[in-house]
Amino acid sequence: MTNTQVTLVQIDNYGPWTVTPEPRREADLQTLQSRLYADISQFVGNRGGYVFFTRFDNMIAVTNGLDFEDHRLLQESAGNRYPVTLSLGVATGTDPVQALSDATTRLQEAGSAQDENRRECLEGRTIDDAHRSDEDVQIAHFDVIDATGNYTDELNAFDTFIEIEQGYAELMRHMRYAHDSLSFFVGGDNVIVVCPDLEDEDYVEAIHHVEEAADVSLQVGVGHGENAHDAGFEAKHALETCRADGTRVELAWES
Amino acid sequence: MTNTQVTLVQIDNYGPWTVTPEPRREADLQTLQSRLYADISQFVGNRGGYVFFTRFDNMIAVTNGLDFEDHRLLQESAGNRYPVTLSLGVATGTDPVQALSDATTRLQEAGSAQDENRRECLEGRTIDDAHRSDEDVQIAHFDVIDATGNYTDELNAFDTFIEIEQGYAELMRHMRYAHDSLSFFVGGDNVIVVCPDLEDEDYVEAIHHVEEAADVSLQVGVGHGENAHDAGFEAKHALETCRADGTRVELAWES
Amino acid sequence: MTNTQVTLVQIDNYGPWTVTPEPRREADLQTLQSRLYADISQFVGNRGGYVFFTRFDNMIAVTNGLDFEDHRLLQESAGNRYPVTLSLGVATGTDPVQALSDATTRLQEAGSAQDENRRECLEGRTIDDAHRSDEDVQIAHFDVIDATGNYTDELNAFDTFIEIEQGYAELMRHMRYAHDSLSFFVGGDNVIVVCPDLEDEDYVEAIHHVEEAADVSLQVGVGHGENAHDAGFEAKHALETCRADGTRVELAWES
Amino acid sequence: MTNTQVTLVQIDNYGPWTVTPEPRREADLQTLQSRLYADISQFVGNRGGYVFFTRFDNMIAVTNGLDFEDHRLLQESAGNRYPVTLSLGVATGTDPVQALSDATTRLQEAGSAQDENRRECLEGRTIDDAHRSDEDVQIAHFDVIDATGNYTDELNAFDTFIEIEQGYAELMRHMRYAHDSLSFFVGGDNVIVVCPDLEDEDYVEAIHHVEEAADVSLQVGVGHGENAHDAGFEAKHALETCRADGTRVELAWES
Repeated sequence: MTNTQVTLVQIDNYGPWTVTPEPRREADLQTLQSRLYADISQFVGNRGGYVFFTRFDNMIAVTNGLDFEDHRLLQESAGNRYPVTLSLGVATGTDPVQALSDATTRLQEAGSAQDENRRECLEGRTIDDAHRSDEDVQIAHFDVIDATGNYTDELNAFDTFIEIEQGYAELMRHMRYAHDSLSFFVGGDNVIVVCPDLEDEDYVEAIHHVEEAADVSLQVGVGHGENAHDAGFEAKHALETCRADGTRVELAWES
Repeated sequence: MTNTQVTLVQIDNYGPWTVTPEPRREADLQTLQSRLYADISQFVGNRGGYVFFTRFDNMIAVTNGLDFEDHRLLQESAGNRYPVTLSLGVATGTDPVQALSDATTRLQEAGSAQDENRRECLEGRTIDDAHRSDEDVQIAHFDVIDATGNYTDELNAFDTFIEIEQGYAELMRHMRYAHDSLSFFVGGDNVIVVCPDLEDEDYVEAIHHVEEAADVSLQVGVGHGENAHDAGFEAKHALETCRADGTRVELAWES
Repeated sequence: MTNTQVTLVQIDNYGPWTVTPEPRREADLQTLQSRLYADISQFVGNRGGYVFFTRFDNMIAVTNGLDFEDHRLLQESAGNRYPVTLSLGVATGTDPVQALSDATTRLQEAGSAQDENRRECLEGRTIDDAHRSDEDVQIAHFDVIDATGNYTDELNAFDTFIEIEQGYAELMRHMRYAHDSLSFFVGGDNVIVVCPDLEDEDYVEAIHHVEEAADVSLQVGVGHGENAHDAGFEAKHALETCRADGTRVELAWES
Repeated sequence: MTNTQVTLVQIDNYGPWTVTPEPRREADLQTLQSRLYADISQFVGNRGGYVFFTRFDNMIAVTNGLDFEDHRLLQESAGNRYPVTLSLGVATGTDPVQALSDATTRLQEAGSAQDENRRECLEGRTIDDAHRSDEDVQIAHFDVIDATGNYTDELNAFDTFIEIEQGYAELMRHMRYAHDSLSFFVGGDNVIVVCPDLEDEDYVEAIHHVEEAADVSLQVGVGHGENAHDAGFEAKHALETCRADGTRVELAWES
């Protein structure tokens, strides 16, 4: 049974900061957002977690393996090196959406994202090492079948992007409402989904849904593990099996 | 009349590189993609352009103000500092979609994105300084009305994200097919759209469409200029007028 | 008694890489070197260690608290994100120079720094958690008394730099030969020294030596701890005592 | 005749910031300093200039090719993305030390480096395009003959570092006092020196001096150009000639 630890990372008072005293250069905001995300990706990733850029001012991470002190250190280090600060809410749940809801509530109860007095909150709880298992996290790694041949080398780059975005939008809604899962576009034609205990038929159904609704053909590799890196790495290898064998769904523990 | 110069930035042979000899740690790929994007944002942004992360392995930029030598230098510098290389296609057009199509074709004709022999292509043409004007670029900066009050402080962070993604997906398709425009989510609740010569009623219609189709309420500031930064900065200020006055559409040159 | 764990980080085959096939832009080399160092500083620093840029192609770190797997991960992550790779040699010793000598020998025995076949070596041993103590690391943080008033606001910036460099050069030689210690300039007017078990009189003597030989007046705060961060943070606080009280030497455990 | 444009880049009020309200983690300060330097290296380097990390809170750049607006933009962009701000002083001179002196004075007259009210000064003048020539900048690129064979593969890494530092300290003092030149260690065994119009015999003398005083054997390639990149690139190529032919001094325009 999965036990996903989810952290919501929120930049404090970001909207107002971007326009005070005057609007700031857009290219600088993009650089700041991307580099802050990249740093969090290294910190969380080096401890076996995954963080997704999401909206950049709000980022969602799967942090099984990071304890409360790790969260505090991440917050301190970012505060030393950026002109903005971070608030963090952490929670766990048998499904990722539940964990994220609780993590969000933790921050919302501490104050508004644009409350100028709310700075560097750290709320919630992490899983004790003694209670962790190698079934805590399930990760599914989807990609578009032969995106390069079907889209990148054929359509203009924006129309390729539209196709992939529409596929992602359908998958994200379906996985959230049908399966309490969190889906994130991670570049190229790849979507990583954080799932509870799903079965082969759930993934077959999801792929079929996206094909029908958006005319985008996906394949998926699924893995599980003690943390996001272990689960996700297993999923990447399972996806290689899809590519090699021409299959649509591969669960690492069933091959 | 707009004359948008668009550059398509494509990482050479990226898909294969990410899994050779073995799949690479996802957190490292995210870090690499984000930092490469951030560097391009600084290079292009410091010359008055905008670049959008798009799919990270394919990035779209508005590069009025950058000449061919600037493109060559960007390519050389990235090649010196990253384990991957970039190919660049540049073109211009009276509408952004046309310019992007031509830029894409330039690269497609040079070879596949995953052709291991195609490296560091630089194809296309830039606008001579003598032919530039302060109407070359039109930028519209949309955001969601009171996203913090309506979503961020109320829903869980993923459901807020879904709402904003659905709004973005509707806007992106509408603006592309109805108005030959390119729309990019840039973080928070913001979407920047690169447009041809559009009028007040075109923006009113777009906002209405998104409200009807996705139940997301947008406002927009629009600017124009010789380059993306000038146009976009004017648009940001126009958006501040929307916020201050409660209006839905503000064109900088009509206030 | 100190038990310093020292890691030598060496970029593989760097000299040849910088000029193959042609010399690379110097500004790009500086950017690459600095950002690689910054990443290692985050990785090592987040685990309680310190890394010093030293010669940039060879960097020296105090890595008490990092185990062998941490070293392997650092190496893998850098290899995924940079166009160069790292070799690492780790060793421990009752004095820092001895530890560094052994770490260096580990790499030299594996092959030349410019041996094009030697890539990503990882040699040596780390301290078991069971054998660690809070006296393992001793750090001394020196700075120049009122550098701003005496130099920065008075001389031209290069002459200020010469004064500080001459002070550093004297201190580095004295501490290495008289006290088996490793000294590193860390910016501004600060030098951090990694020491064995030194006493108050050793620091008084070092300060006197530098005053006589280079006419530069130093003060120093000293701390110890289980790792470099703990020892160094204690040393920073002790240095604040020097500033507040006008003293020249403060040992954190004696105040 | 050389006409070097030198910019002094100084972080405002940095000393106090690093200890307010409490001392900050050293690893974070190192990361911040290095990444700020790397960004300035990209900005200045992409415009044909060179910047040297020097003391990190004070950095010296050769900025022929950058105008006043470029300096203002660098300052604005850094202020948008870092928790510190920069002050810049620019001046020109027939010798680099004179130019740097004037640039320093510009900032000193505006206020102390630790004056909490002095922020983001921009003082001085740049060279008009009409007055530039390809003899404006002379760059000499020194390195240690066979550093890898003589030091890196033989001594422990700190003793190698001491040898190179001693050689650098001698060269820097000699070149400043005998030849009004600015010398900067740039990593590995390399020192880049910004010179006025020096001749072959001046370099032969400098090499002889360092050999006698520090027992370190140097070779040097020298170039000139309209900006630091052109001069420095020519110097790198001349240094390759030293390596290939076994000569000690090569001036690019005399080969």
